Amino acid sequence: MATFWKTSLSKVIQNKILIRGYRIEDLMEYCSFGDIIYLTFTGELPSGNEGRMLETIMISSTDHFFLAPSVNSTRFVASGGVPLQASVAAGLISLGEYHGGAVEQCARLLQEASGADRRARSIVAGYKNRKQRVPGYGHPLHDRDPRTVKLVEKARKWNLDGPHLKLAEEIANELRKPMNVDGAIAAIVSDLGIGWQYGKAFFLISRSVGLSAHHVEETIRERPFRTINLDDATYDGPAERDIPGSFKVRNSS
Amino acid sequence: MATFWKTSLSKVIQNKILIRGYRIEDLMEYCSFGDIIYLTFTGELPSGNEGRMLETIMISSTDHFFLAPSVNSTRFVASGGVPLQASVAAGLISLGEYHGGAVEQCARLLQEASGADRRARSIVAGYKNRKQRVPGYGHPLHDRDPRTVKLVEKARKWNLDGPHLKLAEEIANELRKPMNVDGAIAAIVSDLGIGWQYGKAFFLISRSVGLSAHHVEETIRERPFRTINLDDATYDGPAERDIPGSFKVRNSS
Amino acid sequence: MATFWKTSLSKVIQNKILIRGYRIEDLMEYCSFGDIIYLTFTGELPSGNEGRMLETIMISSTDHFFLAPSVNSTRFVASGGVPLQASVAAGLISLGEYHGGAVEQCARLLQEASGADRRARSIVAGYKNRKQRVPGYGHPLHDRDPRTVKLVEKARKWNLDGPHLKLAEEIANELRKPMNVDGAIAAIVSDLGIGWQYGKAFFLISRSVGLSAHHVEETIRERPFRTINLDDATYDGPAERDIPGSFKVRNSS
Amino acid sequence: MATFWKTSLSKVIQNKILIRGYRIEDLMEYCSFGDIIYLTFTGELPSGNEGRMLETIMISSTDHFFLAPSVNSTRFVASGGVPLQASVAAGLISLGEYHGGAVEQCARLLQEASGADRRARSIVAGYKNRKQRVPGYGHPLHDRDPRTVKLVEKARKWNLDGPHLKLAEEIANELRKPMNVDGAIAAIVSDLGIGWQYGKAFFLISRSVGLSAHHVEETIRERPFRTINLDDATYDGPAERDIPGSFKVRNSS
Repeated sequence: MATFWKTSLSKVIQNKILIRGYRIEDLMEYCSFGDIIYLTFTGELPSGNEGRMLETIMISSTDHFFLAPSVNSTRFVASGGVPLQASVAAGLISLGEYHGGAVEQCARLLQEASGADRRARSIVAGYKNRKQRVPGYGHPLHDRDPRTVKLVEKARKWNLDGPHLKLAEEIANELRKPMNVDGAIAAIVSDLGIGWQYGKAFFLISRSVGLSAHHVEETIRERPFRTINLDDATYDGPAERDIPGSFKVRNSS
Repeated sequence: MATFWKTSLSKVIQNKILIRGYRIEDLMEYCSFGDIIYLTFTGELPSGNEGRMLETIMISSTDHFFLAPSVNSTRFVASGGVPLQASVAAGLISLGEYHGGAVEQCARLLQEASGADRRARSIVAGYKNRKQRVPGYGHPLHDRDPRTVKLVEKARKWNLDGPHLKLAEEIANELRKPMNVDGAIAAIVSDLGIGWQYGKAFFLISRSVGLSAHHVEETIRERPFRTINLDDATYDGPAERDIPGSFKVRNSS
Repeated sequence: MATFWKTSLSKVIQNKILIRGYRIEDLMEYCSFGDIIYLTFTGELPSGNEGRMLETIMISSTDHFFLAPSVNSTRFVASGGVPLQASVAAGLISLGEYHGGAVEQCARLLQEASGADRRARSIVAGYKNRKQRVPGYGHPLHDRDPRTVKLVEKARKWNLDGPHLKLAEEIANELRKPMNVDGAIAAIVSDLGIGWQYGKAFFLISRSVGLSAHHVEETIRERPFRTINLDDATYDGPAERDIPGSFKVRNSS
Repeated sequence: MATFWKTSLSKVIQNKILIRGYRIEDLMEYCSFGDIIYLTFTGELPSGNEGRMLETIMISSTDHFFLAPSVNSTRFVASGGVPLQASVAAGLISLGEYHGGAVEQCARLLQEASGADRRARSIVAGYKNRKQRVPGYGHPLHDRDPRTVKLVEKARKWNLDGPHLKLAEEIANELRKPMNVDGAIAAIVSDLGIGWQYGKAFFLISRSVGLSAHHVEETIRERPFRTINLDDATYDGPAERDIPGSFKVRNSS
């Protein structure tokens, strides 16, 4: 009979922990953290520099000053006086459609494109017809993002670039907008054979490093209960008003 | 044999839902939402205005402009493009030791005080000796908080005030600081017979109303990905620097 | 110049708190919690029993035994030893597409239907053509859900039923499947004039009551760190295996 | 004038991202992910194998089958139909006092012990007198945890062991209970010079890898809305009952 819980990811019995079949002590002996991520997400150990590529991706995304809603969220939540894992979780929740979500969207687009559709021109035209932005291109601040440049350079150097990165670059040409860091990550993890469903995971793992440090810094250096200056806030609702007499009558007792 | 899951709170079978033994359709017919909260937390329906008292408590705390980290967190997280329940949850996580947590702390203090210790003077002296603040007193902005005044007035009017509120007021006299809204809620729910472990729940339920509205307002009125002005942020870490040559040598491959 | 923060929901200055323009002490004097939710979400106080209707909706959804992922999540998280607001938040996060999400989806469907499209037949046919389920109909356990029956009865009694509930019932006839509690809530809040963007909020506010009680019950009655029986779990990944020699060679140092 | 936001962790201007002063492209060129964590948490790049040590620590903790509340939480929440970051966050929230929290507690104990107090005997006696368990020792399942063995072995091999690990081992002797994986991590990161406030961060970063994979596996392999078997749940509250007539009379309208 089927048990309630089932997984192919790990197994634990007394004094033994297996990850995708490998003993934890062996993995601790021979692997980098990037290797383990590759193993966890694909089921097999890397055959080349895939683990280093994933680490390079994650190094690109640990922190982004206060220009990321995730950082500001974690700071506000930490100031409420909560344990580290709680404020980091609150920051991570913000990694939605507009904050790292382009990695998942772009990876899905690249992985689902195939055959005749796999031409940048028709893909871009499709988005334009639907009046949607192609995910993974352009950045509000950076026009030559050093992260993107380095990621593509490393993928080439380690022979990890393939058809998804090629297509992603063709789309950039078609759009006349640079691939952003989300797009580069999407293309490279797709070429590594990782499903688009994992698209947000790299940013999430990586950003949890920066958010942990923001939690600690907030807790150590700042006063509790972060409050804004009233000058930074506007109220544009109804002016102060009385409750109508008719409502009062109905609700008095 | 004991089952994995066990609860005294609710039971569901086909076409029947019981809350603390009562059929859901009967509760929907005869109760207010405040009655249900009282029933859920204490096990019995109220005998007087306890449900109204809880609603009055919750009406006091749905929102507090941008002067509450919970609101700012939900706004930042919503701007990342996430579903409503996710950004509201992120805001609620901030309800920690310094943001509503005083209700739990103060309710515990009041409920654990007993017999000879139950004298305001010795309680206040104990906190002073330990160089701790008594939770539930004083407010950074309000010195005559309209919420506190109204809560105490209603508890008296409905004959729901008892020894915990009395002790709380004696502590205020001893401290020469006004009870704040957290302290008033703590004293009143203690007199209602609700365990201090529920102390944060009233604020949490109530604030989820305001945070839901902040999520929707952020989503409808603002642009995605809330970014601060760079002028509002300072970096005070090390100046830009090169990676030391010795580190490079060790790590080149 | 525009300030960073802007809201029409609330305003706070020293000793004064306004919600949609009304003073907090007046709202505490004259309103039920349901009235406040209506005010917060629509901008105005109710003219009839709208507040009671919302309370009835929320009474329907505080808890659902262990048949709701939200309850099980909060229980597991509470067992890890976290503050109440954190485990309740973790449970609330589960209120996604398949767990209460139908309220938002169904409310959107009902609110966007208009003119010629506003005929149940064409709506149902559209979903069938796209091979999608119409949100808000059918339930895996209940075939005559007492919550749905009571909600519709109350909406009629209080003259709060309108075109959205009518359309929702026509869709039920067309589908030959009963409206479920999500569908009934969706139809009624739509007739109350509340935007579909608030669809998940009622369930969220309501469920936070039950989840708070599950947190406390878990904390008080159960041992920390909830662990399942190993018999309830299956591992179906690769059998225990050695790390390949070639990988070891590459990664030894 | 002080700005609202201030950090020493990172700085971003157009086309330039600094982490602790280093340019992101240089870090991507020369560092492992473990190096970056060390840099982020301590402010400086490692001088030896500190980065590898942190990676080894994190490899030990990515997953633990269904024997960890974090995994079960993420599975339940994912089944509700939410984005990856939301269900991973829900799982991470469970990393509280009893689920990884021992790393923070044990690191704090080791770092605060000093001078005369720094003797295992008096520390253990203090906990016994207060009837508390010493955090970081003993495990409900593993009595010779392969992770602990390997972590200590690597710390020795890389000359990263110091006074905190020594003290931790003396405490184990005094207790006659083996150090568990939490205790080993606590001792080693303390010897690396990382503050106890970061104690939960390593487990959090690491577990986010496993939880991401559990989210994807749940989403791909399982049906939405994970429901338990009713046979696994007991209700031990009041039997089905009617609302008392007196309550009905008071609340009818």
